[in-house]
Amino acid sequence: MPELGFQDVRAAHARIREHIHRTPVLTCAHFDRVTGARVLFKCENFQRTGAFKLRGALNAVLGLSEDELARGVLTASSGNHGQALAYAARLRGARCWVVLPEDATPVKRAAMRGYGAELVVASRDPDERLGRAEALQQETGAVFVPPFNDPAIVAGQGTAALELVQDAGPVDVLLAPVGGGGLASGTALAAAGLTPQPRVLGAEPAAADDAARSLACGRRLPSEHPSTMADGLRSSLGELTFRILRERLAGIVTVDEPAIAQAMRTVWERMKIVIEPSAAVAVAALLSGEVARPGERVGVILSGGNVDLDRLPWADG
Amino acid sequence: MPELGFQDVRAAHARIREHIHRTPVLTCAHFDRVTGARVLFKCENFQRTGAFKLRGALNAVLGLSEDELARGVLTASSGNHGQALAYAARLRGARCWVVLPEDATPVKRAAMRGYGAELVVASRDPDERLGRAEALQQETGAVFVPPFNDPAIVAGQGTAALELVQDAGPVDVLLAPVGGGGLASGTALAAAGLTPQPRVLGAEPAAADDAARSLACGRRLPSEHPSTMADGLRSSLGELTFRILRERLAGIVTVDEPAIAQAMRTVWERMKIVIEPSAAVAVAALLSGEVARPGERVGVILSGGNVDLDRLPWADG
Repeated sequence: MPELGFQDVRAAHARIREHIHRTPVLTCAHFDRVTGARVLFKCENFQRTGAFKLRGALNAVLGLSEDELARGVLTASSGNHGQALAYAARLRGARCWVVLPEDATPVKRAAMRGYGAELVVASRDPDERLGRAEALQQETGAVFVPPFNDPAIVAGQGTAALELVQDAGPVDVLLAPVGGGGLASGTALAAAGLTPQPRVLGAEPAAADDAARSLACGRRLPSEHPSTMADGLRSSLGELTFRILRERLAGIVTVDEPAIAQAMRTVWERMKIVIEPSAAVAVAALLSGEVARPGERVGVILSGGNVDLDRLPWADG
Repeated sequence: MPELGFQDVRAAHARIREHIHRTPVLTCAHFDRVTGARVLFKCENFQRTGAFKLRGALNAVLGLSEDELARGVLTASSGNHGQALAYAARLRGARCWVVLPEDATPVKRAAMRGYGAELVVASRDPDERLGRAEALQQETGAVFVPPFNDPAIVAGQGTAALELVQDAGPVDVLLAPVGGGGLASGTALAAAGLTPQPRVLGAEPAAADDAARSLACGRRLPSEHPSTMADGLRSSLGELTFRILRERLAGIVTVDEPAIAQAMRTVWERMKIVIEPSAAVAVAALLSGEVARPGERVGVILSGGNVDLDRLPWADG
């Protein structure tokens, strides 16, 4: 397979752009003041299905042949990727199966069902769930669309950074949260084609810091039992995303749970927008002072806005 | 005094426009689907100081003479008007006193102090507080800037509706929440100059329905001890705003507290934006089915986004 690069991000954008929201890039005097930088927030919380994940899922689904579409698509994510795939499949009239853990929230189930997905409830154990998905794939012949460790997904996720720079102008730094690494990898591919070329940083919860540890030691060290409120960032890097990030990422900033909650709250209060904890991880990294120097222009991907409003991280605090 | 009209709204806009955010008009597929209408949300939650109140306060302060500015300004509102006046005064380099009830939250005090206001803590009783403000005015010679019952304030608030139609095109209906009536009055004045002329509706909490009752019986009937989560709408109409609304308003839709909380939550979940309960009153009215017919274009003023995140109306529910 040829190396993934900027041209794949550009091709993904051409493919998906008519089906996604061109989300706005917002600024906020408060964050400029406290960082000394010019902060440009790419608001993927306003994306259809509530998160950037739609970009990758659409790029994957729009690249399928008629034969593949006739067989349907399948994934094992209960989160934003599951919703995104369900949305993308409906757009192409394809069946979509999502294998869920038994503790997936009613809100998420309703959202996926609303997009026409067929839900298959399985165990909370990831390995058992993957086994169930594989069996279902055998049975149905559906195309498995992974949440991050896939060239089409990575290229699709990179389109958020591409739009950010197209709409707001050149940046010195691009900052994205890191879970499985799809968004950060795509952002790094997008950056490689920009002039001037920004440095790309990742933001990761200290409680799920497999990417920081893996990049430090040069081999993949998956998180075991990650315990972070940033539910979108509990995955560990895949082989592909590890390879891209090892080659292209300038560094990873890790942040603790109180900093994530505080950053989320500050964005809600100051910008009046709803972001989810995983998006707040990038904001917390920005506020750590380790991302940007005064005067720099920083693009931050606010990855999503799907929050359980009954369980906010500052409740009872 | 000559009759207030559309020309005053236009003049206010010319005066304040360079100092305010041109807030976006957002749409949301969910609200279009459930109402059958095309809903255009004017997002004053993104306005500086977090609410539309800045429009009126700026129009009042920018209209003061140098002599008046040298004496400073004063108000008795602890809410969004207090913050707005403090912001406007700072812009012109004028002193600003705000008389607060003793139970005003630390967040609001900090915001006003952040804009340079001098805070004077008084009783929770509105009459005592007004007395304190009058004494302070005698003592300092400052100009009292009322929160709604004032021509400059009303004209300023009307600029939100003006921008909505300038940016999103003609509407059949304009909908604004009603507290003291400044925003609804200004919206009605703005509507009077538009072609085609939209009908203007007010939205009011059933638990603070003085405007609905007053308009029904033809004289002002203030709310006594209004008990609504919409803290921006507890005021009763003033003489000026009553007169304007009686002449120009097509009607008022009242909504109960559970409907307000549900509407607020739906906006947060679906639109990923933070609105305050007072803004949610308009959304609840929209969802009641009494505002718009299918196919109509409806402009809704989302009045503000200043919420206490520790006391959300769905907590413990």
